[in-house]
Amino acid sequence: MNYDLIVIGSGPGGYVAAIRGAQLGMKTAVVECADLGGVCLNWGCIPTKALLKSAQVFQYLLHAESYGVRFDKLSVRDTVKADLDAMVTRSRNVAETMNKGVAFLLQKNKVDVIRGFGKVKPNKIVEVKSVETGETTEYSANHIIIAVGARSRELPNLPQDGEKIIDYRKAMTLRKQPESMVVVGSGAIGSEFAHFYQSIGTKVTLVEFLPQVVPAEDTDVSAQLSRSFRKNGMKIMVDSSVEHVDTTGNLCRCTIKTKKGEEVVEAEIVLSAVGITTNIEHIGLEEVGIEIDGAKIKVDDFYRTNQNGYYAIGDIVSGPALAHVASREAIVCVEKIAGLNPHVVNYNNVPGCTYTTPEIASVGLSEKNAQEAGYEIKVGKFPFIASGKATASGNRDGFVKVIFDAKTDEMLGCHMIGDNVTEMIAEAVVIREKNMKAHEILSAIHPHPTMSEALMEAVAAAYGEAVHL
Amino acid sequence: MNYDLIVIGSGPGGYVAAIRGAQLGMKTAVVECADLGGVCLNWGCIPTKALLKSAQVFQYLLHAESYGVRFDKLSVRDTVKADLDAMVTRSRNVAETMNKGVAFLLQKNKVDVIRGFGKVKPNKIVEVKSVETGETTEYSANHIIIAVGARSRELPNLPQDGEKIIDYRKAMTLRKQPESMVVVGSGAIGSEFAHFYQSIGTKVTLVEFLPQVVPAEDTDVSAQLSRSFRKNGMKIMVDSSVEHVDTTGNLCRCTIKTKKGEEVVEAEIVLSAVGITTNIEHIGLEEVGIEIDGAKIKVDDFYRTNQNGYYAIGDIVSGPALAHVASREAIVCVEKIAGLNPHVVNYNNVPGCTYTTPEIASVGLSEKNAQEAGYEIKVGKFPFIASGKATASGNRDGFVKVIFDAKTDEMLGCHMIGDNVTEMIAEAVVIREKNMKAHEILSAIHPHPTMSEALMEAVAAAYGEAVHL
Repeated sequence: MNYDLIVIGSGPGGYVAAIRGAQLGMKTAVVECADLGGVCLNWGCIPTKALLKSAQVFQYLLHAESYGVRFDKLSVRDTVKADLDAMVTRSRNVAETMNKGVAFLLQKNKVDVIRGFGKVKPNKIVEVKSVETGETTEYSANHIIIAVGARSRELPNLPQDGEKIIDYRKAMTLRKQPESMVVVGSGAIGSEFAHFYQSIGTKVTLVEFLPQVVPAEDTDVSAQLSRSFRKNGMKIMVDSSVEHVDTTGNLCRCTIKTKKGEEVVEAEIVLSAVGITTNIEHIGLEEVGIEIDGAKIKVDDFYRTNQNGYYAIGDIVSGPALAHVASREAIVCVEKIAGLNPHVVNYNNVPGCTYTTPEIASVGLSEKNAQEAGYEIKVGKFPFIASGKATASGNRDGFVKVIFDAKTDEMLGCHMIGDNVTEMIAEAVVIREKNMKAHEILSAIHPHPTMSEALMEAVAAAYGEAVHL
Repeated sequence: MNYDLIVIGSGPGGYVAAIRGAQLGMKTAVVECADLGGVCLNWGCIPTKALLKSAQVFQYLLHAESYGVRFDKLSVRDTVKADLDAMVTRSRNVAETMNKGVAFLLQKNKVDVIRGFGKVKPNKIVEVKSVETGETTEYSANHIIIAVGARSRELPNLPQDGEKIIDYRKAMTLRKQPESMVVVGSGAIGSEFAHFYQSIGTKVTLVEFLPQVVPAEDTDVSAQLSRSFRKNGMKIMVDSSVEHVDTTGNLCRCTIKTKKGEEVVEAEIVLSAVGITTNIEHIGLEEVGIEIDGAKIKVDDFYRTNQNGYYAIGDIVSGPALAHVASREAIVCVEKIAGLNPHVVNYNNVPGCTYTTPEIASVGLSEKNAQEAGYEIKVGKFPFIASGKATASGNRDGFVKVIFDAKTDEMLGCHMIGDNVTEMIAEAVVIREKNMKAHEILSAIHPHPTMSEALMEAVAAAYGEAVHL
């Protein structure tokens, strides 16, 4: 069977590439060995957001009396229980809904779905091996996009057994709530699970190798997250690494190396969230002669590999391993194939979100990075404690921090931590995309009362013009 | 006593003008006869948002089981009660916090606060009459800004008695929850109170004179709000007007004229929310010879009246009566006085928000207005039912709708209804401020999974390129 376009992998890179290809008139197929929608939709972004929403609702219940809601007869803590099994069931239903949505979109756009493990071969052939029978079938295509993504990384001293030492996938399907948990790694995934379990009542210890939690974020953001986490009772250990886990007893005994020496922490479950590794193995790259760089496929601005007709997008190429990056790369790649003239992806303007409470959203350079890059900067910060909307909603933790280039008055970075900030960062992306100047931002009227006013106030603060500080 | 600047009124126009004036080196005073912060902060935007948050928390409780939270022993409806008195107390505390915040900011910026009713007199004199003693004191200033705002409008056939027929101010301080309520007027204020009371269990009838609720919004937005309101059990009557209210019995008997004839609706309380009228009386305009137009003071682009040294901003001048407009006008007015070169306010790019569930946020032309203005348009709409974030959070009502000029590819209008959209509209304001083209918006990477992706998808839909539809 011959296609115009075959995409290997149906995550947020792959399925978007396939649909956009079909829209542009290509006869298209997508190859998938597991769930349509990939990790993001089935085992990542979406089901975790469902769990985190459950945790948020549970927290609202625990604090309901401060909002003027009364519990008759019993105190709230006697009455209300987090039901992890029900939360996980809801989360799986959400993932299934979105998974069916992708299946529907592929069908609607007449994209063939080929089930099995895909592998590239020379002469623009894709070999698909059935997961059940092991049989292989070959398909040819004018264009082949490799979008096979990544998986959880394993550390040698933290071997995952799927029972006591688990990865994110298991962490989102535990049916019985552990009383205690050690989370290793405080990137977005580790921090979100640490927050989720702590919120529903598990005693969580978060261990980070680097000197700050959410190490990719601005230092002030990290400090605020630590404060908020600690306020909720979480134990945080930075500059620390898990040297060994003894799983022979009832509890896991984690030997953790800190700056002050070794410490032993016991917990029912250890979650390893120490990053990801690409699915670069066994996909035929050597046979076709596709060039790689470490564990990533080398591509140009339009995601063309060194082999004509072979492309790669998403976590398997360099750049941030984020769903929204993969989706944008997919569109640029396919539109270029179709002869359109897409803008290349602006990797300097990729937002990142962490859905803890408070939420984190950021784009561009941190203050430290901007200084190190030699910019003369103006920094402004507006705390939500001064925001009417934050006060009205009872969520006053956090701030918006902006970093401007003092010479051009353009925004080098924007760092937000607080309620709903993941919905606010798109504004900063657009501001940066258009090189909007500080005073143009101030002229753009932000609605009152919103959290989004804090961006405007932070910009004003950077220029000594904040009214509400 | 002589000042560089006296501002009459300390609402979001007045206090912002005073603070900005002081920042720019002017010796400044603000005159206030009631609460610092004005209606917005004490009786408007802020305390209503506090009440609406309480209603949201209460609704989360009622639906907590669908999020995986269990109530032991008793069913949720037996256990949980909305306590209006406690909600109002919380709301008043929030308003008081913000009120003290304004007092602090004025003090910090060395703005004198003069208590009393302010009135302009010739020769740049402000006369302030003490509310308690009736004594008057005169102050002179080089520049006088009138920022006295507006109040609830009364209809002749809906005379407010403050007990059975009330205004928004009383509606936010009721201590006993009414079993039933008729809300007259479905603008932002009427719709927010209708939603609040319906959410905590009052039986609400919302009466609108025009053919749609939230009449200023795009027709699709209005239709969605009606659906969501009705789903929660609210009765909605459009093309209807209250002809007469008989308050002699236990319940108010409202005679309502509809297209199908007269209907009688009984309710414990009638809330009149039929708009506002300016506080133009008794402030000395005639004596000074300040030109007015109807109930508004005439001003130029920099808020100068026809009398040198006298200015007016906020609800008392033409333009939308919104806090964020008043604040921006304040800054433009004061910066111009100080000899700076501020951008004039772009009244075509003012966002509006309504904090119902779902929330509404919009900016620019509705589809109908764009058509009537003769534009050739492209319209795109993305429903939140197709959004992963909305699905994960369990709030899938609503959509983002965008209207583009087919000739310039610029955004004429953006209309959102859904969870948290009030935090998302600032992006559309910025997009419009910079005349960003449709495909530039698509190139700007929106983080996944967020509701803000829906803006990007709606733009794609307008150009036939939506992946997730």
